[in-house]
Amino acid sequence: MEKTFNIFPVGMVRKRGRRVTIEIKPAYEDGLMGLDQNSHLIVFSWFQKSDTPEKRKTLQVHPRGDKANPLTGVFATRSPVRPNPISISACKILSIEGRRIHVDAIDAFDGTPVIDIKPYVPRPRLDAISEVRMPGWAEEKPQD
Amino acid sequence: MEKTFNIFPVGMVRKRGRRVTIEIKPAYEDGLMGLDQNSHLIVFSWFQKSDTPEKRKTLQVHPRGDKANPLTGVFATRSPVRPNPISISACKILSIEGRRIHVDAIDAFDGTPVIDIKPYVPRPRLDAISEVRMPGWAEEKPQD
Repeated sequence: MEKTFNIFPVGMVRKRGRRVTIEIKPAYEDGLMGLDQNSHLIVFSWFQKSDTPEKRKTLQVHPRGDKANPLTGVFATRSPVRPNPISISACKILSIEGRRIHVDAIDAFDGTPVIDIKPYVPRPRLDAISEVRMPGWAEEKPQD
Repeated sequence: MEKTFNIFPVGMVRKRGRRVTIEIKPAYEDGLMGLDQNSHLIVFSWFQKSDTPEKRKTLQVHPRGDKANPLTGVFATRSPVRPNPISISACKILSIEGRRIHVDAIDAFDGTPVIDIKPYVPRPRLDAISEVRMPGWAEEKPQD
């Protein structure tokens, strides 16, 4: 049996009307100290609807579920269908109240488990890249 | 007992002299189809040296191990010490040979498990953010 790693949920995405909140569990609240000095964060979440044995074995998809897009390896897409269904979203922090981080928006359902948060760091080799080249299907459309 | 999620390693970081390679396991090679149309990728890896019960319970650190930096919540740093020791690095693709992706550089040790790869997508709400604000200790220094 192959070695696996364990992920613990540290919180969840909450959506109430237009309000979008990253709600951290009480046990992890101390990990937020100083986050208010950042304007943006990266939310790591778990695409739990894609956490099935079949989906985790799927290695190629038509991006965005559109057959007009060429069959593509999942590592070349942002599809939730992939061996390890981890999502990342860069979000703007609107305010922080205790263990609740209110953000502008996130492409995730209410109740989605959050597994990590990192500050967004606009440096090469971390999060900021210039002169990016992508396939045509990935240009200027909603997230896959 | 809290619910946990399982992560399967899909490859590893290989460093040989100056050559830096993301080596995907044969079972996952089909997931790379089309990645060559992208200039940059985000490598998700597992900080295995931080995968200890003690480090995974640590919620505050002095960034970069420097006591001169204020004690900060791990979710406000890029420290490898955190509940789920996931790393992300944006890399430039130099070439792809089968299941080996040669990249410009990565802040990871030889042998580090790779858990996901995604194309870098320079769009707001995905990977590109402008007008970022950060704490002073995070400005223009090496990666924490």
